[in-house]
Amino acid sequence: MEISKVTKSVKAFGTEAADAPLKSLTIQRRNAAAYDVEIEILYCGVCHSDLHTARNEWHGSVYPVVPGHEIVGRVTRVGDRVTKFKAGDLAAVGCMVDSCRECEHCKEGLEQYCIPGFTGTYNDLDKHLGTRTYGGYSESIVVDEHFILRVPENLDLAATAPLLCAGITTYSPLKHWNVGPGKRVGVVGIGGLGHMAIKLAKAMGAHVIAFTTSESKFEEAKRLGADETVLSKDPEQMKKYAGSLHFIIDAVSAQHDMNAYLRLLKVDGTIALVGAPEHSLPVHAFSVIPGRKSLAGSMIGGIAETQEMLDFCAAHNIVSDIELITMDQINKAYERMLKGDVRYRFVIDMASLKNATGA
Amino acid sequence: MEISKVTKSVKAFGTEAADAPLKSLTIQRRNAAAYDVEIEILYCGVCHSDLHTARNEWHGSVYPVVPGHEIVGRVTRVGDRVTKFKAGDLAAVGCMVDSCRECEHCKEGLEQYCIPGFTGTYNDLDKHLGTRTYGGYSESIVVDEHFILRVPENLDLAATAPLLCAGITTYSPLKHWNVGPGKRVGVVGIGGLGHMAIKLAKAMGAHVIAFTTSESKFEEAKRLGADETVLSKDPEQMKKYAGSLHFIIDAVSAQHDMNAYLRLLKVDGTIALVGAPEHSLPVHAFSVIPGRKSLAGSMIGGIAETQEMLDFCAAHNIVSDIELITMDQINKAYERMLKGDVRYRFVIDMASLKNATGA
Repeated sequence: MEISKVTKSVKAFGTEAADAPLKSLTIQRRNAAAYDVEIEILYCGVCHSDLHTARNEWHGSVYPVVPGHEIVGRVTRVGDRVTKFKAGDLAAVGCMVDSCRECEHCKEGLEQYCIPGFTGTYNDLDKHLGTRTYGGYSESIVVDEHFILRVPENLDLAATAPLLCAGITTYSPLKHWNVGPGKRVGVVGIGGLGHMAIKLAKAMGAHVIAFTTSESKFEEAKRLGADETVLSKDPEQMKKYAGSLHFIIDAVSAQHDMNAYLRLLKVDGTIALVGAPEHSLPVHAFSVIPGRKSLAGSMIGGIAETQEMLDFCAAHNIVSDIELITMDQINKAYERMLKGDVRYRFVIDMASLKNATGA
Repeated sequence: MEISKVTKSVKAFGTEAADAPLKSLTIQRRNAAAYDVEIEILYCGVCHSDLHTARNEWHGSVYPVVPGHEIVGRVTRVGDRVTKFKAGDLAAVGCMVDSCRECEHCKEGLEQYCIPGFTGTYNDLDKHLGTRTYGGYSESIVVDEHFILRVPENLDLAATAPLLCAGITTYSPLKHWNVGPGKRVGVVGIGGLGHMAIKLAKAMGAHVIAFTTSESKFEEAKRLGADETVLSKDPEQMKKYAGSLHFIIDAVSAQHDMNAYLRLLKVDGTIALVGAPEHSLPVHAFSVIPGRKSLAGSMIGGIAETQEMLDFCAAHNIVSDIELITMDQINKAYERMLKGDVRYRFVIDMASLKNATGA
């Protein structure tokens, strides 16, 4: 790998401590090397991981942290060996900016399961500069072309940003577990991930059943494409769905009863976790043995699959439901996100970074 | 279904209360109807489920309970429409004696996942007599030919009995999750089920790694066919196997740490539970998300697959390691089983029932 230590200063927004608010920072970006693409960031989605990392809730944060891994923008410069992009193209970056590219999983297009570990878009080791990687809450980013996605022209650009994490995180397991026509698919939790899962599963042709703890979300779920809605805290409603679902995608990051959802699966059915509750989830052996059921997990998706997802969204005219904010509103947005007060994803209009102070 | 209420009295061994020892009983068996086969029972394996049911540990026992679902014997009589068996043939019965035969799973040969529920060989509703079903601790049994297996002539008959439950319970998940050459397969717990899993996985061509809490079982595990042995309570040994197994079959029915075993799986790996601990097992979302791993379960196997398993065992000369006991020794055998003091399955020589009293 070609190492470039020549950098330029770039304005960003981040935090220098777990308990400090986000504010204006200056970071270094490398100059575009042979295979690199430099992107001016136009929109950046706000993922719950951004907040977890800013506040060191996963205990791995190295400060300063500049979050953001739902990035769309326009190419400003390309290295001389880049073939897939040219200046002026729309482009996107998701959760990964690099991987080993040599292990069995990288070779099969599963970079998210890279054995030595992929390089996260923020709060990871930057192999080029030896510093940390800094994410999309910034003016620009420089990434190897392999990890850059083409953005379809027909989609709303701001609402496309969340597809790079929320979109692929739900698309990948839906595809992996063969969701399509004739399949009854449950979506648990209607938030940033869940609302994408409903739209995508529906577009794949499945019969979609949304599970929520709040009746107030029934109408929303139907608007998003759910065929049926179930109040998950009502045992009578849950009972009616026993043994009736082929697949469930579970996007809830609070503790909840997995055995109750395993009961809803048909024989050979799978629940795929894409949300990560802090504590272990109790699973009874008799919840999985009598129907050869599985509790599985899934993490984002590979680069080729992310492109496939974007193209699928373009073909079905799917984007995220978003609330556009300015960079200065990010700290308030985190507070609202903690209360679940967002339908369904905040996206930062990065033009607002220029004058943002964090005050 | 043809209902026969004409019965004959048969000597059996069972219990009339959760806290009473097993003793001699008389039960009724129906006369063989058109599709029925009557079998003189020669050997019956002793499964841990027998003990659970005799002592009402699963809270569903209706007394008297006559356990036993690892049955081999010789056909004494067949109904006039029976085509697969004739008097004098060897025959076997496992955990099921009937199912609805009409649901999607019965039609695809997965009678163990019959939607209305299969009829268990003991402690279930007997559709013919309206009483409970009584198992293999008895002189004879009458079963529809669909639920009877052909017994290969080249296997030791007594040591074949445990294949009907312990054998198929481990064979089915090994096949379902594509165990074969090039696959690294873990077997957790070396008892009645686990020792069969080692033999079968090895015969399927896999590289087999046995996990045990007791170093004293290392030599045994290798004798049974394990390529490697790991002391599961030693974190250093466990660490060496992180991310290295395609599949794990978990036959432990005591509480144990699933997250520790999930760490051993490769990407897309599965742990299949065939043992059922009493309490829920804590599973952390981060144990399954980063490698798209699954915690699954599996229950016995279908009738066609059970026959396939017996034929596979015949071809590879595989039987269970057993300790042959008399009927009168059953209560003592239960006590030893509770202490794990059996290598690896008790089998009752049913000729001893004739003079058994339980005293």
